[in-house]
Amino acid sequence: MGLPSTFTAAILIIGNEILSGRTQDKNVQFIAQNLGDLGLDLREVRVVPDIEEEIIEAAKVLSRKYSYVFTTGGIGPTHDDITTASLAKAFGLNVEYHVEAYSLLEAHAKRNNRIVNEASKKMAYIPVECPLIYNKVSGAPGFIINNNIYVLAGVPNIMQDMFLSLLPRLRSGKPFISKTLRLLVGESLVAAPLEAIQQKYPQISMGSYPSVNDKGEHITSLVLRSNEPDTLDKAFAELNALLEHYPKG
Amino acid sequence: MGLPSTFTAAILIIGNEILSGRTQDKNVQFIAQNLGDLGLDLREVRVVPDIEEEIIEAAKVLSRKYSYVFTTGGIGPTHDDITTASLAKAFGLNVEYHVEAYSLLEAHAKRNNRIVNEASKKMAYIPVECPLIYNKVSGAPGFIINNNIYVLAGVPNIMQDMFLSLLPRLRSGKPFISKTLRLLVGESLVAAPLEAIQQKYPQISMGSYPSVNDKGEHITSLVLRSNEPDTLDKAFAELNALLEHYPKG
Repeated sequence: MGLPSTFTAAILIIGNEILSGRTQDKNVQFIAQNLGDLGLDLREVRVVPDIEEEIIEAAKVLSRKYSYVFTTGGIGPTHDDITTASLAKAFGLNVEYHVEAYSLLEAHAKRNNRIVNEASKKMAYIPVECPLIYNKVSGAPGFIINNNIYVLAGVPNIMQDMFLSLLPRLRSGKPFISKTLRLLVGESLVAAPLEAIQQKYPQISMGSYPSVNDKGEHITSLVLRSNEPDTLDKAFAELNALLEHYPKG
Repeated sequence: MGLPSTFTAAILIIGNEILSGRTQDKNVQFIAQNLGDLGLDLREVRVVPDIEEEIIEAAKVLSRKYSYVFTTGGIGPTHDDITTASLAKAFGLNVEYHVEAYSLLEAHAKRNNRIVNEASKKMAYIPVECPLIYNKVSGAPGFIINNNIYVLAGVPNIMQDMFLSLLPRLRSGKPFISKTLRLLVGESLVAAPLEAIQQKYPQISMGSYPSVNDKGEHITSLVLRSNEPDTLDKAFAELNALLEHYPKG
């Protein structure tokens, strides 16, 4: 069930390394948790390869459909970093040398007793009139394009620093809160009571997640999520009362 | 860069638990690695919430666009498990009581000295004429719909058992192989030589992935991936020769 929220969000992961199975994505969960805390409703994630037309299509669709889009990956110095050029093309913008972006690269290089080499200069080219997104880890900036697409690095610690720098400018709603009831029982036994509570509280997202503990016993986690804390407390209390005869897991 | 392959694939993850940040997805990497071994080119991943219209839209688009679609999640016994009903609606099929599916649930329950309770019976309802996908872990089957959508469980060990049971029926191409060169150097220094090799071997996917090691030093992993082993060996040898003056990471 969807959560009522004024502001929605999507994540677009750009890069072959997730699709080849080489890399386990770590960016979705970080962004997802932070968006929840902000009261923004993450509604979709897409992973696309380093192929221009795929990036363009996904970016256009997601930008139209959601309040915020966060992309990760593809803004580095190598030939497979095509996010900047692809997004510029998607929205009909030229990519130009950006004085401030270059000075950020230069300052970072100096701090590490290096110079900005030829390949790194690519990271100073930004689609025109796109505000920069800063990061203290690598210096190389991301940017905001088409007003609602936030273009972030793919390397987790750089991405995280960029994302956190954006917090003051993201409009936020009421934070989403979750409450979890873990029971030592298979989920089919809790299906009917859970559904009864869901019908009574349609505005609360309720999910049932089965797993198995170390002893091989069935565990069911019932997760209630909402940005209305009072209603959440009420629904959670009623669910607990309805299921109090089952052992906690 | 995309890999030449006759058969393409997509993954559709259905469920609020990834989008809320509660759960770290573990299914994409497992499926991605196995598809690579099969020579199937995973081209897209989408994560959508438990919302009927979102499931329907994503399933239709992906089924049309790719040779294979693998969905995970939403086929359990609780009210938030709406994958089966949504996909049936997407392709205009009725969901009906399935004798074999029920007998699988019954056999599994018997082995565990249980009976099939009311909620579990939901898992015996399958869109008409859809072949079942078996699993030994929970008994509850998945199914194949619209010829190319493979509907799997979301729980990782059940999903994995289902996926592996499908291997004999997936057409396969030449397996994709990767070779990685890890260098103790920032990626901007290898950008030009890597691009030169990429231009010489356009049919090989070449990616550059920066990271930082335990000592805080920059590491660059250059990953070459192809289903043409001889060409891959040749390109990899040339890349090594071109970069032999950099220390290995």
